[in-house]
Amino acid sequence: EVSLYGMSLILAWPDEYAAKVSDQSVVSKVKTTKPYPLASNEWKEKTLVEVGNVEIGGKRVVVAAGPCAVEDEQQVVETAQAVKRAGAALFRGGAYKPRTSPYSFQGLGEEGLKLLRRAGDEAGLPVVSEVVDPRDLPAFKGKTDMLQIGARNAQNFQLLKDVGRIGLPVLLKRGMGNTVEEWLLSAEYLLSEGNGRVVLCERGIRTFERSTRFTLDVGGMVVARQSTHLPVGADPSHPAGRRELVHALTLAAVAAGADLVIVEVHPNPERAKSDSEQQLTFDSFRLLMNRVTALAKAIGRDI
Amino acid sequence: EVSLYGMSLILAWPDEYAAKVSDQSVVSKVKTTKPYPLASNEWKEKTLVEVGNVEIGGKRVVVAAGPCAVEDEQQVVETAQAVKRAGAALFRGGAYKPRTSPYSFQGLGEEGLKLLRRAGDEAGLPVVSEVVDPRDLPAFKGKTDMLQIGARNAQNFQLLKDVGRIGLPVLLKRGMGNTVEEWLLSAEYLLSEGNGRVVLCERGIRTFERSTRFTLDVGGMVVARQSTHLPVGADPSHPAGRRELVHALTLAAVAAGADLVIVEVHPNPERAKSDSEQQLTFDSFRLLMNRVTALAKAIGRDI
Amino acid sequence: EVSLYGMSLILAWPDEYAAKVSDQSVVSKVKTTKPYPLASNEWKEKTLVEVGNVEIGGKRVVVAAGPCAVEDEQQVVETAQAVKRAGAALFRGGAYKPRTSPYSFQGLGEEGLKLLRRAGDEAGLPVVSEVVDPRDLPAFKGKTDMLQIGARNAQNFQLLKDVGRIGLPVLLKRGMGNTVEEWLLSAEYLLSEGNGRVVLCERGIRTFERSTRFTLDVGGMVVARQSTHLPVGADPSHPAGRRELVHALTLAAVAAGADLVIVEVHPNPERAKSDSEQQLTFDSFRLLMNRVTALAKAIGRDI
Amino acid sequence: EVSLYGMSLILAWPDEYAAKVSDQSVVSKVKTTKPYPLASNEWKEKTLVEVGNVEIGGKRVVVAAGPCAVEDEQQVVETAQAVKRAGAALFRGGAYKPRTSPYSFQGLGEEGLKLLRRAGDEAGLPVVSEVVDPRDLPAFKGKTDMLQIGARNAQNFQLLKDVGRIGLPVLLKRGMGNTVEEWLLSAEYLLSEGNGRVVLCERGIRTFERSTRFTLDVGGMVVARQSTHLPVGADPSHPAGRRELVHALTLAAVAAGADLVIVEVHPNPERAKSDSEQQLTFDSFRLLMNRVTALAKAIGRDI
Repeated sequence: EVSLYGMSLILAWPDEYAAKVSDQSVVSKVKTTKPYPLASNEWKEKTLVEVGNVEIGGKRVVVAAGPCAVEDEQQVVETAQAVKRAGAALFRGGAYKPRTSPYSFQGLGEEGLKLLRRAGDEAGLPVVSEVVDPRDLPAFKGKTDMLQIGARNAQNFQLLKDVGRIGLPVLLKRGMGNTVEEWLLSAEYLLSEGNGRVVLCERGIRTFERSTRFTLDVGGMVVARQSTHLPVGADPSHPAGRRELVHALTLAAVAAGADLVIVEVHPNPERAKSDSEQQLTFDSFRLLMNRVTALAKAIGRDI
Repeated sequence: EVSLYGMSLILAWPDEYAAKVSDQSVVSKVKTTKPYPLASNEWKEKTLVEVGNVEIGGKRVVVAAGPCAVEDEQQVVETAQAVKRAGAALFRGGAYKPRTSPYSFQGLGEEGLKLLRRAGDEAGLPVVSEVVDPRDLPAFKGKTDMLQIGARNAQNFQLLKDVGRIGLPVLLKRGMGNTVEEWLLSAEYLLSEGNGRVVLCERGIRTFERSTRFTLDVGGMVVARQSTHLPVGADPSHPAGRRELVHALTLAAVAAGADLVIVEVHPNPERAKSDSEQQLTFDSFRLLMNRVTALAKAIGRDI
Repeated sequence: EVSLYGMSLILAWPDEYAAKVSDQSVVSKVKTTKPYPLASNEWKEKTLVEVGNVEIGGKRVVVAAGPCAVEDEQQVVETAQAVKRAGAALFRGGAYKPRTSPYSFQGLGEEGLKLLRRAGDEAGLPVVSEVVDPRDLPAFKGKTDMLQIGARNAQNFQLLKDVGRIGLPVLLKRGMGNTVEEWLLSAEYLLSEGNGRVVLCERGIRTFERSTRFTLDVGGMVVARQSTHLPVGADPSHPAGRRELVHALTLAAVAAGADLVIVEVHPNPERAKSDSEQQLTFDSFRLLMNRVTALAKAIGRDI
Repeated sequence: EVSLYGMSLILAWPDEYAAKVSDQSVVSKVKTTKPYPLASNEWKEKTLVEVGNVEIGGKRVVVAAGPCAVEDEQQVVETAQAVKRAGAALFRGGAYKPRTSPYSFQGLGEEGLKLLRRAGDEAGLPVVSEVVDPRDLPAFKGKTDMLQIGARNAQNFQLLKDVGRIGLPVLLKRGMGNTVEEWLLSAEYLLSEGNGRVVLCERGIRTFERSTRFTLDVGGMVVARQSTHLPVGADPSHPAGRRELVHALTLAAVAAGADLVIVEVHPNPERAKSDSEQQLTFDSFRLLMNRVTALAKAIGRDI
């Protein structure tokens, strides 16, 4: 029994379905053929997730933009202003960075969260940032409007459980080695702890093709959208790995139905402390927003 | 030295560049840093490939549609009419079918090619069909306007050489286990035999994700487009494997810049002798064409 | 109905099983739950494939060794002598080479087959060589004791059909993008044409790991061995891609039950015209044979 | 500057090498061309990791055996006795289980650790168990002789840092979507925090082949062994996914040079609460140990 979306839910797999439940306080019963009953769309229509004043999962294609990592105040403030002007709906940046090497820049931590908040407030954009350790969660309170769980923590079930107990909306990336079903089961961890404000985000999987950093699995994203009531989006920056590919992959994700896209933007990508290859300049991002806006209209959506 | 696009070409890798070539009959020298000098766009702008009256690689997004396999006259004639009405530019169907199992329907062979030609002529559409054996090439003469080399023969170098010696335009699919570079090297086999009328076609690669039949590698398609002067397209039907996914993947491919898309269409997909799961009905194809047309306009292209 | 192993076989899938067959000339009926009835071990115990005087699939682990490509007479004669002395049972070398690039050395063709035969005869070793085009089959007659079908032609179904109609034993490699089931279905093409003398050979699949050239799928090899009556072996040279890895992968394959292993050996690997990185010197091969022999004994087999 | 193996180490990438370091307390300087300087074998010979009285990385092939999950006292006590009798050197069992689904059995937690300790002590075997959350580390003190970091946490860098600060030996599994280099970089997190008692463990990667649960990457294991001074082992149970494959994969791993192998054993696998398909019975494990012992001797090692 879980409390979710203002209802008390009882999970029931087909063969153990509690038909006799008659408790008045139980509003709904989830009956499912899928291993992820709460995330499945067998019992619920499309869910809208609100982040500040922004609604994800509706007609609008939500663009979340910002630098890979928070580096200093000027960088985040300028970037927030620039992406806001270009039409982004959310400001996203990393303060706690999960890095493959212990010798890479690990982020500014809580100081970075403060800078993100200041920049987001000045630009009028809600803030999204990644959490990598449950013990850091108190630092996020009040400073972040949406928590991101990154690809490398997509099956860090302890983190999922802790984040599931917090009311903040969650942006859940797919692990680079995870199937669509495993990704939905990770979402199920969040939902089964009572947090239903979850947006799924495809970010590229590991395949034999290495001319791109990862392989953006547009098909997997579509399968996920057809399997869950939660909004599903994509991060085209990480699979691209090179900025020349970001436009095309962003347009592909939107055309295939993404409810949200994440684009990495930096005032001076060449000098970025992380992922410098894949971040867009302000000019390139503005151009991309024009293209995305035209495309969104053509498929009956807004930006 | 190859004769291509009306020029005599001399291949030259950087360290062996024949600067002293002064033969008047040699129009161009290809200098390259890539392993596929003739296919590389380092020496040549975008190539337009003409198939009948249809130009691939220009502003128009060319839609090639038709049944997976030719089954009988009524089927192909009806389908050709239907896809023509909906706006397809090419009629595509399989007469020689490479099937994973020896017990699956292997196609009608030369009889199938005749039916395709008749159906294409009646509908006014050039015909594309797959060749699987060099010894069948005489049967294709006059019956087919474009030869397809399928994924399973993408590294059948003997077939590539033989098809390279024939003047017909070629639709070269990427092998399911091939990198983008290997795919371009397969094109190089065609070009180095003197056939420059080649269109590349991404059709999904093998990855760990099995909720789709293959993983449509949109990123790989974009990398190919940025590496070669040849047109590059996509086949969304095979990676989809289920018709519910075909629309979204087609739109993604077009948004990412595909010069051509292949869509499998059947009068009655449930009864199809092959790939019944992924073929669209006439109605669904018509709807898809409306969506693709709107999207193409939004990105500055036509259908 | 197929004639195989001296029997007339009738294929019967469970729901269409011809119980009423009473023709005396029909010796066996193959009933199966697998898509590859003839290759399945549901109806037949382990098959022994004889190549010259060498039996594959029995107690002996058969080592097939030789150069990647035939380059000249001295090279093949020396190598045949060396691998014979070290204990190899078959001599293997490439005369028709399927190369990723049209500009790579494509092999000596029929001349190479003659050199192989001479070298094999002098050393007293049966000869294995790859065929890439059905039209070359006459050239192989009398010169080769076993035909190899390479990874890139593993789903070249025309070639499989033609080779299936010839009596010579076949070494069938797994395609780099093929599942175990697809590989067994390729074998089924050979068997359904009446050729039951087939040995399967795992040679590495395409995965995201690129520190090796391919990923030797030992598990897939074991699954194949548990699914078919045909002998199953491995080629550790190609997945290794570097000679430092060849010993370990060969030992792994033998420990896991390989009936045959292929090892590439060259008098002077640094100067080899193809795959120079992965070929062993004579000394290294001799050492490997000592290690393989000790290991084979420990698991109850011979060399 | 890190303190490791009783030395003070200064990391130096080639271009920033501090030749002028003259501090007497600095015993060694690590100069490297690899991104994982401390784990690299460019500066250090093979490291032996001691777990209780068991040495990993020497002549002995260490077998760690036990149930996937601790279920009750009888189960663990019986299993510890059985694997000890058969020749296992370490007792391994899961108390905190990272499960893909929130509805699967999540383990007995601290109570499970106590049972493991009791069973290990009675059998005279050091105990290995997985930690999934840094906040659980105090519970492991005194109850576990070696900490396992599982595949799903292979890039949970917070956990790696915390475990790196603790003196206990660590068994670090490779993530199912991680390259060999990323795996070694995860080890580098442990080493750079001052914990050099690390054993790497290959456990199968995600590939397109699904007839096995994962693809045991024997080649990747060999590459790792040739790149680091740390011991490297393999877990054949998880990639197998079915007990019929466990023997062959274990033998393959040992033949390829594994310093340690992990085998899952259960008194009654059919009734196991997790991974019931892949756990061996006592009888099957005893037989496997006989086979592994014979093989180890043939390659110059002990059990």
